[in-house]
Amino acid sequence: MAQANFNRRAFRDALSTFTTGVTIITTRTEEGEAIGITANSFNSVSLDPPLVLWSLDKSAFSLPAFTNNKHWNVHVLSVEQEALSGRFASRGMDKFKGLELDEGINDIPFLPNCTARFQCRTAYIYEGGDHVIFVGEVLGFDKSDLPPLAFQSGQYALAARKPREGFRLSGDPPPECSYTEDLLGYLIGRAHYQLLGKLNEILQSQQLDQQSFFVLSVLCNRDHLTLDEINGYVEYTGIKANQSLMRFLEKQGYVAAEEKLGQIRFALTAAGREVSLEQIAQTKAVEQSVVDYLGVGDVQALKLLLKGLIRVTDPGLPDLWSTDDKKLESA
Amino acid sequence: MAQANFNRRAFRDALSTFTTGVTIITTRTEEGEAIGITANSFNSVSLDPPLVLWSLDKSAFSLPAFTNNKHWNVHVLSVEQEALSGRFASRGMDKFKGLELDEGINDIPFLPNCTARFQCRTAYIYEGGDHVIFVGEVLGFDKSDLPPLAFQSGQYALAARKPREGFRLSGDPPPECSYTEDLLGYLIGRAHYQLLGKLNEILQSQQLDQQSFFVLSVLCNRDHLTLDEINGYVEYTGIKANQSLMRFLEKQGYVAAEEKLGQIRFALTAAGREVSLEQIAQTKAVEQSVVDYLGVGDVQALKLLLKGLIRVTDPGLPDLWSTDDKKLESA
Repeated sequence: MAQANFNRRAFRDALSTFTTGVTIITTRTEEGEAIGITANSFNSVSLDPPLVLWSLDKSAFSLPAFTNNKHWNVHVLSVEQEALSGRFASRGMDKFKGLELDEGINDIPFLPNCTARFQCRTAYIYEGGDHVIFVGEVLGFDKSDLPPLAFQSGQYALAARKPREGFRLSGDPPPECSYTEDLLGYLIGRAHYQLLGKLNEILQSQQLDQQSFFVLSVLCNRDHLTLDEINGYVEYTGIKANQSLMRFLEKQGYVAAEEKLGQIRFALTAAGREVSLEQIAQTKAVEQSVVDYLGVGDVQALKLLLKGLIRVTDPGLPDLWSTDDKKLESA
Repeated sequence: MAQANFNRRAFRDALSTFTTGVTIITTRTEEGEAIGITANSFNSVSLDPPLVLWSLDKSAFSLPAFTNNKHWNVHVLSVEQEALSGRFASRGMDKFKGLELDEGINDIPFLPNCTARFQCRTAYIYEGGDHVIFVGEVLGFDKSDLPPLAFQSGQYALAARKPREGFRLSGDPPPECSYTEDLLGYLIGRAHYQLLGKLNEILQSQQLDQQSFFVLSVLCNRDHLTLDEINGYVEYTGIKANQSLMRFLEKQGYVAAEEKLGQIRFALTAAGREVSLEQIAQTKAVEQSVVDYLGVGDVQALKLLLKGLIRVTDPGLPDLWSTDDKKLESA
């Protein structure tokens, strides 16, 4: 950790390592115009009396509005409000255009669907260098269960909460060995196999296997595929569908084959769609139990990180959800 | 979102939805005693002059020290410093016991291994209800690449940064279908298969398959296992080792069988350990490429969340890293 030069950029970078939430703070001008800005300089100050603070650039266009009007509302943004954060962080446009507002204590703009809101009256305005520090008494507040948006080193973020009881899956410290349970590949693999274990409960009751599951779920998303096209989607799993699997699924009444222009194309039957939807319902039920345990915010963070992992390890798979009709290269 | 009653607990809960980093702020008493407290009320105020602020409970034991001494240091804690955060959040004990300190601008305690540090001199002390607001001029600062610790709704957390370019893996919006790429089971599966794809490159060069990989990596952690014991560890993957696989691995010279008390037990040979370590080195290399892309902090957050997922879906697996010698129930 080398002592950094004291320049503006380096100072800003060092400050931005301190994680924050994201708020929108609103007020009205004397003429009644709605004003709102995005700020992450918010923090709590006092419980009794209830006080919060934030600071505003002295050169901000909105400074006169906030110094004239004693009332302002702080909105702690939820993960879903990232676009709103961007809108209120920019200049010039009518930021409130098309927004429905809630009814607050007074006429200050009061945004819905936030993680928490504080309706405030200025208690103190303090000098803070190139900023002004507003300390507000909280007249009213509310809170939802929506996971909050965070901000970290110049990027939006989600907070993945650490379990109170600590990190390890098992109680004992690991012995010296060539890998530990902290290996990413091990964790991904174990998580996946355990989820597959839950899926297998349904598959067994349907007398189907994972191979069939992959084929049915591809056909549930895209109909009328050739065997090669199906394999283009599932081959990365190490599973390859062949003629005999397709014949088995036809015999079970789950898949119908159709010859078109000399190519055999497969589609789900009604019964096939039904078993596929049962399988997907099971994976959704498992996901819900994970959400119940980890919380919505942590599961969103997990998905986000998995998408990053998928992107960095992507061997160039075709997009199962793409809406364009471009045909896959046959494998 | 219902208007909450204005009570202390509910107010605190609403405030705590605002995500923060975690800092330790240090100073010295007039007698030279080292003082330090954990605070998450830190925030930046001004770039020019460089100012930061934080607030301290008026009833805090450390208040006289911070009002008497103009100098104090703010340490933005890294993920590794959770225990230190706990230590400085508690009372009474000698918090600095055993800690090595860095050399700062002056004699204020200066903790190493932080994400960022700010060496400050009080610029203003402001009234803030039951707290005092300290605004400090930053005389020096530095920053490391260690991922910062966060705090969210009363729990320690890691920030999982959202990619600037948005959430979706592929460019097009998903068509209406029975599941989307946002399904947790899909994301875990795809991430896992893609990682396995990287592992397979090594396995192919070794003329081995995944089954062999699982058996070898179990034996790399625990020697002298029976076939049933090996399966106790790997069965959840859906892969089951059998006599013929073990005979194949013996023939390749990777595994040695030994009869003891009427039981056949397996152990790695030197050659077996070597191929297993090659495989593990490959998974570690892939992990490093993921770290290079996502950053250390995001990979830590991912692992943390995967551990939570593993815990909630755990069918009760034996612990591969347990140090006790209790024998597994045979499958």
